[in-house]
Amino acid sequence: MGVGDVSKRILLGRKLRSAQLGETLLPKRIALPVFASDALSSVAYAPDEVFIMLAIAGASAYVWSWKIAIAVALVMAAVIASYRQTVHAYPSGGGDYEVATVNLGRTAGTTVASALLIDYVLTVAVSISSGAQYAAAAIPAFLDHEVIVAVAMVVLLTAMNLRGIRESGSFFAVPTYLFMFAILGMCLYGFIQMATGTLPDVESADLEIAPDEGWDQPLTTIGLLFLLARAFSSGCAALTGVEAISNGVPAFQRPKSKNAATTLLLLGTIAITMMVSVIVLARQMAIRYVDPHDIDKLTRDGQPLPDDYDQHTVIAQIARAVFIDFSPGFYFVVTVTGVILVLAANTAFNGFPVLGSILAQDGYAPRALGARGDRLAYSNGIVFLAVMAIAFIVAFEAETTKLIQLYIVGVFVSFNLSQLGMIRHWTRALATERDPAERRRMFNSRIINTIGLTFTAVVLVVVLITKFLAGAWITILAMAFFFFVMRKIKGHYNSVELELAADETDKALPTRVHAIVLVSKLHKPTLRALAFAKATRPNSLEGVYVSIDNAETARLLEEWDDRNTGVPLKVLHSPYREVVKPIVEYATAIRGANPRSVVAVYIPEYVVGRWWEQLLHNQTALRLKGRLLFTPGVMVTSVPYQLRSSQILRDREEREDARVRPGDVRRGQTEGTDRQVQ
Amino acid sequence: MGVGDVSKRILLGRKLRSAQLGETLLPKRIALPVFASDALSSVAYAPDEVFIMLAIAGASAYVWSWKIAIAVALVMAAVIASYRQTVHAYPSGGGDYEVATVNLGRTAGTTVASALLIDYVLTVAVSISSGAQYAAAAIPAFLDHEVIVAVAMVVLLTAMNLRGIRESGSFFAVPTYLFMFAILGMCLYGFIQMATGTLPDVESADLEIAPDEGWDQPLTTIGLLFLLARAFSSGCAALTGVEAISNGVPAFQRPKSKNAATTLLLLGTIAITMMVSVIVLARQMAIRYVDPHDIDKLTRDGQPLPDDYDQHTVIAQIARAVFIDFSPGFYFVVTVTGVILVLAANTAFNGFPVLGSILAQDGYAPRALGARGDRLAYSNGIVFLAVMAIAFIVAFEAETTKLIQLYIVGVFVSFNLSQLGMIRHWTRALATERDPAERRRMFNSRIINTIGLTFTAVVLVVVLITKFLAGAWITILAMAFFFFVMRKIKGHYNSVELELAADETDKALPTRVHAIVLVSKLHKPTLRALAFAKATRPNSLEGVYVSIDNAETARLLEEWDDRNTGVPLKVLHSPYREVVKPIVEYATAIRGANPRSVVAVYIPEYVVGRWWEQLLHNQTALRLKGRLLFTPGVMVTSVPYQLRSSQILRDREEREDARVRPGDVRRGQTEGTDRQVQ
Repeated sequence: MGVGDVSKRILLGRKLRSAQLGETLLPKRIALPVFASDALSSVAYAPDEVFIMLAIAGASAYVWSWKIAIAVALVMAAVIASYRQTVHAYPSGGGDYEVATVNLGRTAGTTVASALLIDYVLTVAVSISSGAQYAAAAIPAFLDHEVIVAVAMVVLLTAMNLRGIRESGSFFAVPTYLFMFAILGMCLYGFIQMATGTLPDVESADLEIAPDEGWDQPLTTIGLLFLLARAFSSGCAALTGVEAISNGVPAFQRPKSKNAATTLLLLGTIAITMMVSVIVLARQMAIRYVDPHDIDKLTRDGQPLPDDYDQHTVIAQIARAVFIDFSPGFYFVVTVTGVILVLAANTAFNGFPVLGSILAQDGYAPRALGARGDRLAYSNGIVFLAVMAIAFIVAFEAETTKLIQLYIVGVFVSFNLSQLGMIRHWTRALATERDPAERRRMFNSRIINTIGLTFTAVVLVVVLITKFLAGAWITILAMAFFFFVMRKIKGHYNSVELELAADETDKALPTRVHAIVLVSKLHKPTLRALAFAKATRPNSLEGVYVSIDNAETARLLEEWDDRNTGVPLKVLHSPYREVVKPIVEYATAIRGANPRSVVAVYIPEYVVGRWWEQLLHNQTALRLKGRLLFTPGVMVTSVPYQLRSSQILRDREEREDARVRPGDVRRGQTEGTDRQVQ
Repeated sequence: MGVGDVSKRILLGRKLRSAQLGETLLPKRIALPVFASDALSSVAYAPDEVFIMLAIAGASAYVWSWKIAIAVALVMAAVIASYRQTVHAYPSGGGDYEVATVNLGRTAGTTVASALLIDYVLTVAVSISSGAQYAAAAIPAFLDHEVIVAVAMVVLLTAMNLRGIRESGSFFAVPTYLFMFAILGMCLYGFIQMATGTLPDVESADLEIAPDEGWDQPLTTIGLLFLLARAFSSGCAALTGVEAISNGVPAFQRPKSKNAATTLLLLGTIAITMMVSVIVLARQMAIRYVDPHDIDKLTRDGQPLPDDYDQHTVIAQIARAVFIDFSPGFYFVVTVTGVILVLAANTAFNGFPVLGSILAQDGYAPRALGARGDRLAYSNGIVFLAVMAIAFIVAFEAETTKLIQLYIVGVFVSFNLSQLGMIRHWTRALATERDPAERRRMFNSRIINTIGLTFTAVVLVVVLITKFLAGAWITILAMAFFFFVMRKIKGHYNSVELELAADETDKALPTRVHAIVLVSKLHKPTLRALAFAKATRPNSLEGVYVSIDNAETARLLEEWDDRNTGVPLKVLHSPYREVVKPIVEYATAIRGANPRSVVAVYIPEYVVGRWWEQLLHNQTALRLKGRLLFTPGVMVTSVPYQLRSSQILRDREEREDARVRPGDVRRGQTEGTDRQVQ
């Protein structure tokens, strides 16, 4: 059986296996929860932000709350509609980054990538901080320890992702559907109570809010507009995560784009319904909600609140009031909300490596991130994400309100560039398209994206004006940093490519091969290396031994003669027990004397399986290889000898390979034995 | 010029260079300070320990102090005499470890090695802790912050040694001679004052010491014996470090053994003079000195001392009193004492790698420690020593008194085994020696070593009885741990050796060589790898490309045809962007189909110079090599392509190589440009 046959069989073999095991595509009912947790979870904090911002002018400003809810809903509808265009036009899963790069160029693409990197970090920071608040609502012991709780949750998530948690469809489906059921059920129950006139007030209803200084007089128009703009931009936190589906089109069942678009519509409808319901209900139940930093703005009957007063999140307050006679209802709502927030954070751990691998393929990130199965690169990414998120959580004391200011900027930067790119895309498509029906469709799409751009641009401007000093500048600084690093990496790869480009001078073959086999002892690995080196029939072949002890050298020489290997042995004396240097110098000298030849250095290596065994072996071989690589005209051959214990590591590697890694589901890829998606 | 000529030239070249540059042997006047700092520095804390132990029975027990000084001096004289025998009999520098191994077997040798490992750690901990006390005596701001000061000093020493501080003769000579001058000068001046009746009292002279409970009645004989035994065993701390010369005989000028023995005698005379003088003088000046933990045992006129009372070390108190009218004298004594203590700690940083390399050569430590110039192994050793020392310093709050209890055990374990080994040595030598003069000499030597053993055995027993619970058990536990680890390592190397032993089946040559060259792009590194692979004339040769993108694959195939390399290109499809696995499977399959052949995998590698460039390149090549090593019948060849930036790293490596490393001087080795010893 020749090599050709073997390779053909392998190629077929692999193809077959890929087709069988590889693609496990998601039906809509699974795709929705997989991609929705991030977007839906924002209902856990977005309404709170609206009430906090309005509270600046006192509780009377809450009259605007449902109008702001409508405005946010409108923007969300526009964005959802826009992304429905994107999933049709760019079904490859490149998302905003691809749209911006293709239509607006590399600079815009890199800007979007920087924004997305920050977004992933802040998704973790915001979701987990909010999750810690819900945990504190359910478990009083966590109160005032939100930072520790949040950091512990990030560490736990990181450990699970490093270990290789499976992101399966059902993993998402159950809690996400439970969350929808909980929130929508709670709202429905509340509305029924409202209709029957039995809707109770929330716990904070009897409080008064002292307006901020300067906001206690009747508002000027400018003042009112500014207030509403701030509340509106904070409410737009509800939009975070809706772009996720545009990155996951390849994971959908066919017809992929259509299914993705339908899922987006579904997601949008549910998200809008939830958000508007919560805000309207909270307002009806007379909520009073302020920035947790300004808790002393709340008073009861003119008296300050007791020191141990705790302000619970809006959903927690609603749930407690609505389910006043049914406390399991309250705990259910709060628990699934907490769970969905953790899931939302986990999506960042899944999306981050995917983004990294796309960037790596384009040369904007270390190339190792681009290959699947590089555990080290993958782990570094996870740890990087976690460390950044923890830094933000600690720096902002796990306060969702503050982190939101940073979050929205990044999200809307990529929304804007993506919409702008889509408009360009349609304009370009219209320039060549002649079919009138198709042209009309494109025209409509362009209008939708233009509306989307208008809305998101307004939000971005509002956000930048109202939130720049409140933290948005940090995001912009961080984006600039990532932008710079990515450009630097790309520049490096480009200059290396230039230096490596083949030209006509690279065809000369070396005339001779001088092989040297390193000998430390005359044992099986050495004999194998000698045999392999002999099999390559070099022009000259010798063993090389570095002598650091005369008695040992004499013993080896004798053994060498006894063995009758037919290969001469060169002894290099090294009175100071240096091993690496004499060999490097010897190889250099051989090459120096024969500039058109190549020196092949054969190094026998032991392959062992346990970590501590690896500390005990091959260290010198490693160093030697490191040094020989700097020597021109030298090639270094490792001849491995597998010790019995190597089986341990081999088995472990195979087990690791079989494991599905986070991010696979949303790439539409699974591999290994477990591939059920129900 | 053939390979043979080249190699001959290199061999001669190296030999010549070794003879010229290598050995820079030490004259006695330099060898004394190089090896003496550890032994002499113990006069900085040993007298204090004697007074602390006697203080248990109150100041009246100080009447015994000079007798204890004499007893310690006697033991030291015996030990010095014994080691003078050792340097004659074992001039190779193996010291106690070699003596025990050769004469008493591997178990005794490993026991001594464990004791020495602990000794090095405790040398650092004790010397630096004592140094911190002297620093506090001179700089009041350091008072009560001794732990921080000590840890900072260890960190500083570690950094200096990692950076590669030169341990030159003059580096030691000046401070060591200054220290001798300072202490002996101070004592002489004190004795003159004593003779002229003008000797002042020390600052603590007017204090009373409350005896410990149970020690306040007149002592029973047993009680007195126990008290004196404790004080005596603590005083034996003065003996630490005298064995250093026996490890450094190769560094001496010829006649090595004779010069080493003379230096030992000199060292012993000075050390005994210093210690006895300090104790006698302190007693004459009415010192009161207690365990810093029991500072409230000190009273003045029956009243407790103020809270801010600070007890200074014995030498500091003497210096302050003697130089009452000349404060520079006080600062000079305290400063050089502090410096000598740091130097003593530094000797551990120098001795530790030497011991590691000896153990590595015998298979009791990772083999990488045995080769010179392995920076990584060397650095790991330094960091390990520092971390252990810091752990002891922190655990014992930098209190010399407590650390001494641990220190003496280790020191005397090796003293004992070494003496026992020497007795065996002489007995064995006597069995074959016939020359009467020589026999008489051996007989005398054996008597000296027997006396040495008797003395050190008594001390060890006393130490074990009086100090076991006070901390000696920790040393014994740590020794047992190191002993176990070393045995385990040796066992591993032995079993590997057995598994690797060559037998008659290992002569079969592979029949065919299948070469595959990994292709990621068609650039210079790939072309070089192809050329090198072709030059080895394998039985079959093909390029292998892992396709993860169809467009790119098509581009490469076209380029491949254009180039007309004459080598077929195999494309392995990998829809999930895995690179490593398809190649490993392909290589495995080729080998599986041709079990008597060998598969040669050629990997083009970029060689870059900057650390961040290394993160951006070769990660996949590294992983691939790691995996291919587990595949039987495969050899992996790295074909390096040096990018321009590689010169940076190459230059750095050469600079590093040229640097003389710590430990070199005491091995009698220096290399590089700077080889002056004055």
